[in-house]
This record gives sequence, C-alpha cells and structure tokens, in this order.
Amino acid sequence: MAARKLDGKTEVGAWKGENILSIAQFGKQSAQRVLTVADEMKAMVKAQGANDLLKGKLLANVFFEPSTRTSSSFQAAMLRLGGKVVCVNETSSSSQKGETLGDTIRCLECYADVVVLRHSVKGSALVAAESTTKPVLNAGDGVGEHPTQAMLDLYTIYSEFGDLENLKGKVITMVGDLKYGRTVHSLSKLLAMYGTTFNYVSPESLKMPRYVYDELAAQGIQQNETSDLDSVINQSDVLYVTRVQKVMAWLYDAYLQERFESEADYNAVKDSFCITKATIAQAKSSMIIMHPLPRVGEIAEEVDSDPRAAYFRQMENGMYVRMALLALVLGKA
Amino acid sequence: MAARKLDGKTEVGAWKGENILSIAQFGKQSAQRVLTVADEMKAMVKAQGANDLLKGKLLANVFFEPSTRTSSSFQAAMLRLGGKVVCVNETSSSSQKGETLGDTIRCLECYADVVVLRHSVKGSALVAAESTTKPVLNAGDGVGEHPTQAMLDLYTIYSEFGDLENLKGKVITMVGDLKYGRTVHSLSKLLAMYGTTFNYVSPESLKMPRYVYDELAAQGIQQNETSDLDSVINQSDVLYVTRVQKVMAWLYDAYLQERFESEADYNAVKDSFCITKATIAQAKSSMIIMHPLPRVGEIAEEVDSDPRAAYFRQMENGMYVRMALLALVLGKA
Amino acid sequence: MAARKLDGKTEVGAWKGENILSIAQFGKQSAQRVLTVADEMKAMVKAQGANDLLKGKLLANVFFEPSTRTSSSFQAAMLRLGGKVVCVNETSSSSQKGETLGDTIRCLECYADVVVLRHSVKGSALVAAESTTKPVLNAGDGVGEHPTQAMLDLYTIYSEFGDLENLKGKVITMVGDLKYGRTVHSLSKLLAMYGTTFNYVSPESLKMPRYVYDELAAQGIQQNETSDLDSVINQSDVLYVTRVQKVMAWLYDAYLQERFESEADYNAVKDSFCITKATIAQAKSSMIIMHPLPRVGEIAEEVDSDPRAAYFRQMENGMYVRMALLALVLGKA
Repeated sequence: MAARKLDGKTEVGAWKGENILSIAQFGKQSAQRVLTVADEMKAMVKAQGANDLLKGKLLANVFFEPSTRTSSSFQAAMLRLGGKVVCVNETSSSSQKGETLGDTIRCLECYADVVVLRHSVKGSALVAAESTTKPVLNAGDGVGEHPTQAMLDLYTIYSEFGDLENLKGKVITMVGDLKYGRTVHSLSKLLAMYGTTFNYVSPESLKMPRYVYDELAAQGIQQNETSDLDSVINQSDVLYVTRVQKVMAWLYDAYLQERFESEADYNAVKDSFCITKATIAQAKSSMIIMHPLPRVGEIAEEVDSDPRAAYFRQMENGMYVRMALLALVLGKA
Repeated sequence: MAARKLDGKTEVGAWKGENILSIAQFGKQSAQRVLTVADEMKAMVKAQGANDLLKGKLLANVFFEPSTRTSSSFQAAMLRLGGKVVCVNETSSSSQKGETLGDTIRCLECYADVVVLRHSVKGSALVAAESTTKPVLNAGDGVGEHPTQAMLDLYTIYSEFGDLENLKGKVITMVGDLKYGRTVHSLSKLLAMYGTTFNYVSPESLKMPRYVYDELAAQGIQQNETSDLDSVINQSDVLYVTRVQKVMAWLYDAYLQERFESEADYNAVKDSFCITKATIAQAKSSMIIMHPLPRVGEIAEEVDSDPRAAYFRQMENGMYVRMALLALVLGKA
Repeated sequence: MAARKLDGKTEVGAWKGENILSIAQFGKQSAQRVLTVADEMKAMVKAQGANDLLKGKLLANVFFEPSTRTSSSFQAAMLRLGGKVVCVNETSSSSQKGETLGDTIRCLECYADVVVLRHSVKGSALVAAESTTKPVLNAGDGVGEHPTQAMLDLYTIYSEFGDLENLKGKVITMVGDLKYGRTVHSLSKLLAMYGTTFNYVSPESLKMPRYVYDELAAQGIQQNETSDLDSVINQSDVLYVTRVQKVMAWLYDAYLQERFESEADYNAVKDSFCITKATIAQAKSSMIIMHPLPRVGEIAEEVDSDPRAAYFRQMENGMYVRMALLALVLGKA
C-alpha cells in the first residue's frame, strides 16, 4: 500500500520501506517516534556533526520545482548520516523529453535506496511511490501535502513545550493566508490529536477551508475565526504566521473597492497582518512565533532578536526531523 | 594516444589512465574484462551498498546537455565506490564566458582525478581527452558515440544470456529510428564480434546507415532489413527498441502525402512500431526487450510486468558498468 | 566583528570562526599561515588524495552567479578534506520568492558549518557574515573583493619564487583591463607588503584606479604606468594577464574615432595585449605568466607549453589555498 498508517511500529527497523506521503499516516504513537528519533539526531549532530548510520545508502533528491531550504535540508540530513546524495532537478531531467514521472522514478530507483520528491502537481508523490519499491518521501506536491514540514513544525512545538500531552487546551493562533497555506492545514490536523484550541486569523476570503474546519469540529476541537489578530494575540501560546502575499492583494483590492471606511482603517488591518515588536508587546512571554519561511515581510526583522522568535530554530529542526525520517524508512531507527 | 585499444590488458591496474571514448577500443577480451568487473560491482552493491575502492578520488561530472539517467548513474557509481563528485553543467560553466572546451577540462583536471563528459558536439570527448592527462569517459558526444551505453547494453545481454560465446547465431532485432540512434550503431558493432544475426526494422528513410551495414557485412554478419516487425518478432532473441519520434513524424508525413492505400494501412504500420502485449504475444519466452530509455510511448506500460521486459534491469546495469569503468581507468580493477 | 585582522593568530584553532571577506584582513604573518597550510594540503593531496580533517563538517556553497572554477574548487577542497557539500545556486534559491540575503544565510547556517558565497553585489559577503555565527568565505562579491583569488595568486608566486621576502625589488607587470579587474587590485595590495615594483600596462581609460595607486605610493612602492608592454616585458619577474574584453572594445572604439595614425598602428597596439610566443621571446627565463582564467584569447595556446606558463598551476593552487582557508576557519589548522 502506498501510504500506510504508521502507528504501532515501535521497534528499530519496523518502518523500513514505508513511504512518507501524508500526515494522515501519523497517529500519536508514530508521531512521537519521529520526534524521539529527531531528538537523538539533534544530540548526535551537536556532539559530533555526523555519523555513519546510513553508510552505503544513496538518496535521489528529486526537485521538479526550486526550494532552497527543503532541498538543502534533505541533502544535509542524508550527508550528516553518512549517506550519499544524487540531486535531480527540473532542468536536468528527462521529463523534458516527455518521460512520465513513473518512468523517471523507476530509473532513479535503479541507483538509489530512497527517493525524496518535490513536484508541483498534487498526487505526484503517490504516483512516485506506486512506481517503486524503494521508500518515497513527499517533499511537497503542489496544493497537496508537505508532511515533513508538518512534522518539523510539530517537533518545534514539542521542543519548546516538552511532552505533547501538555498541549491540551493550549491556544494555537494561525495568521495570514489560511486558504492556500497547506502548512497550516496539515499542522492543525496533527495538533488536534493533542486537544489544542485554534484561532484562525485571516481576511474573510482567505479563511481556513471548510473541510479542515469541519474535520476538527467533528473531533470536538474548539476553533475561533477572526480577522483581528489583536483580539487573540494575548491568549496565544503559539503564533503561526504564513506568507501574506495573497492577504495583501486581497486587502488592497478591498481598499480599492472602498470597503474600508478610511485609509486609516485599511492601514490598521493591513498592519495587523505584519508581526512587529508592537504586535507581540502584550503577548505571553512563553509564546513562540513560528513561520515556515521564506518570509517576505510578514515578520519584521526587529522581532528576530526576541527570544519568542522560534522560526530559525524551526528551520534547524527540519534537518533533524528529516534525518529521523530517512533513518526510519531505511530501517536504521 | 587518445583512444587506445584496450585488449590484452588483463591484470589489475593495467587500464590505469586510459580514456573510454569509443567502442572501437574494445575487443572481446577487454569487453569481457568490463563485464566481469561489472559483475563484481553488482555483487558488492547487493551485499553492502558501497565500499571504499575509490576513496580519495574525485570525479568531475561535466554535462553540457541535460541527461538525468547518465549523469545520475555516473554520480551514483562514483559515490558507491567511496569516491567524491563535483558536478559541472552548462548553466554553471565558464564556457558562457567564451572559454574553450580544452581550457575548461584543463581547469577541471586541477581538482579532479577523472572526467566524465557529455557534450552535444561530435568529437568533444576526444578534444577533452587530448587536453588532460587524467582519464576521460565519453558520456555521449552528440551524433558521435556513447560507449558506456553500448557497454551496459552488452552487459545486459551477457547478464540475461550468460557466456557471450553463446550469442553465435542469436537473432537481434532492432526497431525504430536506426538512422540517428547512435545506440544501435555501437551495439551492433559490439555484438558482431560474437557472430549474432540482425534484423533492422524501420521505415525506409530511417534505415541503419550504410557504413554500419557494410562494416558488419564485411565480417560476414547476416543482416536483414524490413519495415515489418511482425515478420521477424517470433524469431528474435533480443528486441532492441529505440525512440520513435522520427519514425512517427516520417509515417505521418507519408500519410499526408497519400503514400498509404487507406487510413487503416497507415495505422497498421504506425502501431507496428509501438510494442504492446499483442506485439510480443507469439515471441519466444526467452526473448528480452531492451530500450535505452527514456521512452516516449514506444513500449506500452502494459509490457512492463512481462518478465521479458529487461529495460529497467538494463538501467540498473548502467551503474555497475560505470562503476567498473571508473575503477578500471583509475587503476583499481 | 565581521572582518577582523588575522595577524598574530599562529596556533592551530586560532582562526576558528573567522570570516574571510577581504584581503585587508591579512598581514604578512597571517598570509604566511595560509601559504604554509596550503603547502601541507598540497603534500597531502599528492600523497593520498584526501583525508578526514573536516569529517562531520558541512559546507553550504552558495553561488548567486555562475563560476565553474571557483565553485568546483571550493567543492573539491571541502570533499578532499572529508567534509560534505550542499550547493545552492541562483535558480534553486528562495531569493526568487523575495527572501533577503540575510534570511537565506540564516537558513543555511541551520544545516551548515561554513558558508561560501558568490554574489554579484558588492558588500554581500559582509551582509552574509553579519547574518550568521558560522564563518563566511567571500568567493567574489561583484566589483568588491575576491580574497581567495588573491591568496591563490600569492600562493602561486610563493610556490614559484620561494620565501616571499625574496620578492623585494621583483618586478610585477600587470596587463589588460586594470580598472575593472578586481583581481589585480587585491593582488597588488598584498604584494606591496613585500616591497615589489609594479608595471601597469593598459590603455589610458582602463588604468589602475587612483585609490589603489595612491595607497601603494603612500607605502613608497614604485609604480610605472604605460600602454606599451614591449617596453617592460624584459624586466618583468611576473607577468599577470587579465581579461581583455574591455581593452579590445576600447581600442576598437579609438580606432573608429581615428585616434590611430594608421591601421598598422592600431593592430600593433591591439596585438600587444595578446600574449604570444613572440611577446615573451626576450623575457627572463625565470619569469612566470599568470592569468585568473577563464581566458578568452588573451594568451595564445602556443604559450601553454612554455615552462613559464604558470596559469594552470595557479588554478590547481586554488584548491590547496581553499582547503587551507576552510581548515583554518573551522579550527582544524
């Protein structure tokens, strides 16, 4: 099966050969396994930089669209475990010659022990997984999923708050473009397992999709939708900021259509989606600020030095989570 | 000399420093040496994934035109032998600044122990070889040669049929664009050493070039040209399929010029160049189907599950043959 | 501080964490340290190809503009020291999404232990260095600096002439585009420490910038400007040739404006900027010819076989100098 539930696999090697395609594969037990192994990876890197756990293993790192950090993070993860990496990107690919994705993957599996795939088309990772007996890790398939991002987000919250069972009742505030940001869709489903509460802050037209809202509501999760960040910031334990290009375009459009009483009103709303020192002045001292990066103005640089700014720690965590996942699907953790 | 005959070099280290530019360098003895070392490489990879045979050696993998599988295959080959790889491709090259190929290669030899070169211009590999004292492996020079492809094709036939002396009288059927497909030119010359018989299946205007036909005829090799695959498929031991873009364009042109009696005639011919389950229904159970890949519709996906479909095994063999050649020219096999 | 003076740091590990941004950081003592370590690296590579000095360390090799030899040289340097490399180039970068350089570097430092940066904008390396706690090596920042090129040039002169104190009174002749060639600006400042004398050979409008000339004049360095190479070639100990595109364009422009008495005059001047066997016929037998490469016709290929042609040795030296700098800033030399 292409995307199996991973819960209940606790012994070393039990994940061997599995694909990582969707966060729907993870229950509490399997998520915890990833976090525990990621902790081990972090300790190893801090102590010695690299080891030989994946010696003799080769990763095909296949990116059909550019992504500095996801690609670099997977490469660094494999290299720090003593594995080897062959990069395949759009410009060097035979897909230019009209080859199917399935054939490309079947060719790469001839050289590689594991495949990481980034592709612009939803469902590509599943197609790839069904073309090969080697494990496939979905590194983002268009508007589909990006499960290693969701897992590194979860690992960051775990690293900052400790035991995930402590998350019950904690307030997660997600702000920005919640409609198209696949990151927040996946993360909210993962966090719902632990009984968190959610604030969704966005303009009306960029609200969290109904299917996500309804899925969480059916689990009894408390969800609150608003366009006013100031009204919820002070109760938040996690502030998860997404890219706001679409938010800004929407607001500007609303402004042109005179849906704001005054220019001052427009500016107030617009500024409320950009996190500054002022935004978080009254927020909890234990709150953490996350962002999947790259940012394009959503968080002012003045916030970077605030201890609550967790987004660069989050970035670093990506490598540990990917090390964990590579080791798990290759049967070495 | 830039492209020396390799026969008679049987001890370990005897190939050290040689270039691999053309299949004309290979006789039976040297070809067998490559196949034997490739077998050892395959056994090593199956047993342990990688070793340290080429520890301390660095490959400059220079691709002036994109080629996923050849480039990845060479990288994987070097990495699995414990060597290191620096990739140089067209977009990152100083050739954009007007540098000659010779200068580019002379610069790369300052860092590298061996150079793999893919270039669109025939003769480039020879120019490169004459610019450096380090061994150069030709990974395809335009309409010139692609000797590692020919050697992996030979290795595949060897792997499937055993002792190459058994090939005497075996029937090799090559189908598609035989005029521009450098793969079939090289392979037919290699196989002729073992006394095989050939069927060349193509439209009239895409026939095997006269110089290839005449060279083999002079050796007493039996060659049969036809445009009707059905008439020869059942006697074939190897069905070697090449890309058919040019075949299809030619047929469509003939159709427009009303050179077919009816549309049904046109479709019958057209379909005869696409291998389906029906095409091979009556073929020998021991026949193997090969293709240099990528394919673009020449072989239906329904054929993939047939045990006679050898093209993905052929792809995997490419890595073992390249491992063998790298080890040989670096004096380690 | 982003670019500290490096003199006085003589013990192993003393350079740990330093950035290499500018040749202004180097005094005689620190320059000698690089040369001495480079000599050790050269001996190691000749003896065994590679070692494990930087095992567990990862280099982010970030190139925002193409550069075959600088990029390959840094990769090879890191790999031959047992380190690992992740390459980031313009086309794969999130800078396309509008990310600041500082953010890109802060993300890369999450995976990497050291950053090499090539960027088209002057000052970029400093911006990068101020964004990260990991050492940054400037691999060229537009019209700014390219300190590893200057150090490999110095290492080449050291390798050819021995003790740098012997350079006092030696004549360095720089020819070509001296206005825009950042290489000659940096090298002349470095060499001035040792009391060399300079000839600057260029057309009037492409002369060495006044700020370089004045800086050296203030140190009592003898400098002679001319457009006539023949008048100074025979007294030269080093002939440093730079790229002449701008020289040729300027000369052609002058020709069109009839600033030459005759076509013969024009050709004589034009040819004087291209080094041939004839150019160096009467030069010292101990003179060395250098060029930062790639060349585009500035030195005829017939010169390559002359023992005085040092430019390919210079290229090879680049790897040893970069190995030395990587080892130094990572605290391993």
